[in-house]
Amino acid sequence: MPVPVSAFDPPFNIVRCSHVVLGVTDLAASRAFYEGAIGLHVEDANEACVWLRGMEEQQHHSLVLVQAERATCLRMGFKLASEADLDKAAAWFAARGLAHDFVEAPHQGRTLHAVDPYGYRLEFYFQMERRERLLQKYGLYRGVQPQRFDHFNVFAPELQSSIDFYAGLGFRLTEYSEEEPEDGGRIAAAWMHRKGGVHDLAFTNGAGPRLHHFAYWVSSPMNIIHLCDVMATTGYLDALERGPGRHGISNAFFLYVRDPDGHRLEIYASDYLTVDPDHPPLRWSLRDPQRQTLWGAPAPRSWFEEGSTFDGANLREPAFVANVIIAH
Amino acid sequence: MPVPVSAFDPPFNIVRCSHVVLGVTDLAASRAFYEGAIGLHVEDANEACVWLRGMEEQQHHSLVLVQAERATCLRMGFKLASEADLDKAAAWFAARGLAHDFVEAPHQGRTLHAVDPYGYRLEFYFQMERRERLLQKYGLYRGVQPQRFDHFNVFAPELQSSIDFYAGLGFRLTEYSEEEPEDGGRIAAAWMHRKGGVHDLAFTNGAGPRLHHFAYWVSSPMNIIHLCDVMATTGYLDALERGPGRHGISNAFFLYVRDPDGHRLEIYASDYLTVDPDHPPLRWSLRDPQRQTLWGAPAPRSWFEEGSTFDGANLREPAFVANVIIAH
Amino acid sequence: MPVPVSAFDPPFNIVRCSHVVLGVTDLAASRAFYEGAIGLHVEDANEACVWLRGMEEQQHHSLVLVQAERATCLRMGFKLASEADLDKAAAWFAARGLAHDFVEAPHQGRTLHAVDPYGYRLEFYFQMERRERLLQKYGLYRGVQPQRFDHFNVFAPELQSSIDFYAGLGFRLTEYSEEEPEDGGRIAAAWMHRKGGVHDLAFTNGAGPRLHHFAYWVSSPMNIIHLCDVMATTGYLDALERGPGRHGISNAFFLYVRDPDGHRLEIYASDYLTVDPDHPPLRWSLRDPQRQTLWGAPAPRSWFEEGSTFDGANLREPAFVANVIIAH
Amino acid sequence: MPVPVSAFDPPFNIVRCSHVVLGVTDLAASRAFYEGAIGLHVEDANEACVWLRGMEEQQHHSLVLVQAERATCLRMGFKLASEADLDKAAAWFAARGLAHDFVEAPHQGRTLHAVDPYGYRLEFYFQMERRERLLQKYGLYRGVQPQRFDHFNVFAPELQSSIDFYAGLGFRLTEYSEEEPEDGGRIAAAWMHRKGGVHDLAFTNGAGPRLHHFAYWVSSPMNIIHLCDVMATTGYLDALERGPGRHGISNAFFLYVRDPDGHRLEIYASDYLTVDPDHPPLRWSLRDPQRQTLWGAPAPRSWFEEGSTFDGANLREPAFVANVIIAH
Repeated sequence: MPVPVSAFDPPFNIVRCSHVVLGVTDLAASRAFYEGAIGLHVEDANEACVWLRGMEEQQHHSLVLVQAERATCLRMGFKLASEADLDKAAAWFAARGLAHDFVEAPHQGRTLHAVDPYGYRLEFYFQMERRERLLQKYGLYRGVQPQRFDHFNVFAPELQSSIDFYAGLGFRLTEYSEEEPEDGGRIAAAWMHRKGGVHDLAFTNGAGPRLHHFAYWVSSPMNIIHLCDVMATTGYLDALERGPGRHGISNAFFLYVRDPDGHRLEIYASDYLTVDPDHPPLRWSLRDPQRQTLWGAPAPRSWFEEGSTFDGANLREPAFVANVIIAH
Repeated sequence: MPVPVSAFDPPFNIVRCSHVVLGVTDLAASRAFYEGAIGLHVEDANEACVWLRGMEEQQHHSLVLVQAERATCLRMGFKLASEADLDKAAAWFAARGLAHDFVEAPHQGRTLHAVDPYGYRLEFYFQMERRERLLQKYGLYRGVQPQRFDHFNVFAPELQSSIDFYAGLGFRLTEYSEEEPEDGGRIAAAWMHRKGGVHDLAFTNGAGPRLHHFAYWVSSPMNIIHLCDVMATTGYLDALERGPGRHGISNAFFLYVRDPDGHRLEIYASDYLTVDPDHPPLRWSLRDPQRQTLWGAPAPRSWFEEGSTFDGANLREPAFVANVIIAH
Repeated sequence: MPVPVSAFDPPFNIVRCSHVVLGVTDLAASRAFYEGAIGLHVEDANEACVWLRGMEEQQHHSLVLVQAERATCLRMGFKLASEADLDKAAAWFAARGLAHDFVEAPHQGRTLHAVDPYGYRLEFYFQMERRERLLQKYGLYRGVQPQRFDHFNVFAPELQSSIDFYAGLGFRLTEYSEEEPEDGGRIAAAWMHRKGGVHDLAFTNGAGPRLHHFAYWVSSPMNIIHLCDVMATTGYLDALERGPGRHGISNAFFLYVRDPDGHRLEIYASDYLTVDPDHPPLRWSLRDPQRQTLWGAPAPRSWFEEGSTFDGANLREPAFVANVIIAH
Repeated sequence: MPVPVSAFDPPFNIVRCSHVVLGVTDLAASRAFYEGAIGLHVEDANEACVWLRGMEEQQHHSLVLVQAERATCLRMGFKLASEADLDKAAAWFAARGLAHDFVEAPHQGRTLHAVDPYGYRLEFYFQMERRERLLQKYGLYRGVQPQRFDHFNVFAPELQSSIDFYAGLGFRLTEYSEEEPEDGGRIAAAWMHRKGGVHDLAFTNGAGPRLHHFAYWVSSPMNIIHLCDVMATTGYLDALERGPGRHGISNAFFLYVRDPDGHRLEIYASDYLTVDPDHPPLRWSLRDPQRQTLWGAPAPRSWFEEGSTFDGANLREPAFVANVIIAH
């Protein structure tokens, strides 16, 4: 693929991905999953919403569960660098005729909702209520000891176009997979970052717009092994979808679990530094099965096919189906 | 199944499983695998044989590789409690008309070869040359840092009978799986010990006599994760057969790898104490898939079907085929 | 020192160390420590006693806390191989004119109390109520995830004599430290086992009879690091006495903590197999500081000097003071 | 202290700390230490220099060892965001009358040497030769598996002024320690970053300019424990200066080792994200001993007092001596 030219001086400054807002059909069950099994800290809760965060996060929430009729992804949240960037963002979406609106979001300062050309529901803010540091409140560590929100991964039916769009907003490519030239040479997936790690936002060719997963960073594979043991023996066996294992791409030690509504959460250990402006993107051939699992085990079909729809978005099929290896 | 009555005062005193002797078709390739990838310490080597041991073992060898025409398991080695036990053992096999012979085995004292009624090739000894302790020679730690030989696991076509035979030699049952009564109620696998851990010798229903695997104990799942990373990126990707994962049975964190001849090695982390005479055996239903993998992922077909034949033994099919869950 | 000759066929068969009974001055505070911080499972509790156990233990208790006026060690508990061994033990203590008595001990079968010639308070039993296996109840894992009771370590004023006495009961020496010949050549500490690991009972030269510490085995140094983080930030900072670190002797990854009464608990990761009758004991020179801490950091003075007295025993000074390196 | 105002739009764009250049008196001994014990990858070597890097670094080197008469720190290296930033930097140092010079540095593009007002020797560059990614060449992993250069820590006699100076270059404060008001209220140490982690450059009150240490990031405390075991048993026991342990400040799991010339290297596991422009700095009281070691153990005197001088710089005493807790 043509490697996208990322804006060095983007129209507004996105610092990083920040939080996800999920519609869930049984708030109590979802809270039990994310607080009781995964170990996120519940910062606030009422009858309609639960706000949670990881152990190093001083922001009020990085996961918002909203009681809803249907299980959808309501918003992908991004932090901007300043209040002024909020206004620049609003103007930029306005100039392109894209839906956007300033809204009230509890525990956040001014908040801008916007929809990109592909239907992803976005939420931007600069200020969020700050909460006490829990990083050294080790007595509160539970479950997999999730430390911070790490990234989004979405299914994109118009992959190349989506990548170019986000490159224009300053996202920078770190890794990508593509077909060999004789297979069509099309890009199949891309990992893009703002915060200096492997990704804030990754794109996978597929029916969309849909959220494939969101991820929390943990400090050790041992946390993940313990989570497997706990989930397998406390009624969450079926929630273990894929892993643990090592991705070739991103070198992540990973585990994928499904919440009670099927929203997919990745527990992600390890990362590397990509803060250099000239950090070279890494290409993987779609013919190389180790890009998916370094150790060779294929992913199950559900992992390739299922995801969370975005509330209100129309689902579109991708232009092509890339050839992947699926466990039967 | 009827739980076997283990001899409290057996005819001769087997202390523990000790070592395995493997016929390999390319000695250099096998040495590269066990020394270079797995990290066993080569204690001695000549053109026909390589002797290796784990980091805590002061015995000269726990793995003997022998250049051979065919890849077979030559001997399963057991340590006896005294010289006198060797003579008791010889008399005992003689009284039953079972093949047995005192042989010269390099680096070992008096060594008795015997064949049990099922065709397993056994080797007994009391004395072996002692070598320098490597446990705190951390500069020599390599690969998965294998610490000691742990156990054998064999395919047994006459499972109940084999179990009863070894119970008569003082092996004690720790865990077993069996069919539900309405499925036939037959035993499908058994784990038996002498040394106070989960097993020295385990039996699985299947065509035999064959060695399913032998195992080395390591101190942490982290060693196993690192081994996966190393093998996957140094030409041994195809040697990764199953895992890493957690067995329900034995609670082991496991990895199964295949050597260049297909002999199967388990890397085994965790164990528990079974030294009490009244330690109760644990029953698993064959209908419970978590007995195999606590986290739910099924094993590949090769793991259920393939094994190492014993040199000179006739292969026999089991009386029934137990119903297991296989990954496709 | 003269290496003791361990009885191969002892007068009664001690399988292993089993449990400790501690007098504590504030039962609620002690329970909070052992259950809340350390993570032992409370099996039973009343106003006077709390019974706890580790995650792999099916015996009713391995730690008994007893509300008392003074903080002492009430009993060191050992499991025998059979009911008959209880009577053999009683006869043996009787023949030597040593205090002994069959007593009622809740949740245990017939229980023999005895005092050895040095004043250590002992408790023997064969049967104890069995409780549900928790090894795979991972949802109950807490704190440092203590898996099983591992050993006792006592101060002994008559060290050589004590060692010989327990050798006569079948305890076998695995490691010991002694002075160089020019320093006197006296033994300073000894590690002895019954169950096939490094120790069930260790002796250190010093004023006694006193309990230096008892230990629980855990599966990984990571558990210990996490416990340090938790204790340091939940009001137990002062309870961290020594470590984490690696002993030269026993190769243990260790942490020593003090309970609210000052009883010392070792968290102990790693061990090695000593089940061979001809397992050679390992000698350490008292001049080698790495025997204490392989990495070089000295232990604090309290660790050398403080311990729990045995209820009712007279304290005696040792014949000599060995030269150790103390952190100031 | 007055929290410094970090330049949001600094005079030139420093991306991150990048590498250190050390003068060493025995190049072979230093290479044996950094390559053989620590496990850095030697990328190039000649009679006068050795260039090394960590496993995720694609830059040619992050550690340069230079054979020298005296053991000094020759340069602290920083990567700039572009070629243009090099010229902006040169102009900026020129405008302030500070020594600076473009030099030839092997394997680097245009390289600017400069001396700040306090005597620290700096080196700036934008381009460095790129080398093959080793992150997934797991067969090359050795020693503590150092992944990337993480930070510098320097002794500063004019602490407040130094902090303000680097704030002016865009460094942002993450944590700091200061005296209580009644003790003088003076700042004692500060941690500042550019790359979004806890620090690129930290300052400690003390005689300077001197390098206290430089650090490599590793992925797990288990790597550090293994390094301790290896160093303690391969002739590097005396090189273990402090740790392993947990800092209160930065929450780092740390180990400090001294190379053959006494240069201090920190092995640093864990970090947290500080990329938000409004990330609040964390204050520690100098009266809180947990800021140094969360678990309570004090640091040895050498750690507080010893460091590497900068070649050609005059040593100056600090204005005051802060009260720290030292192990005797």
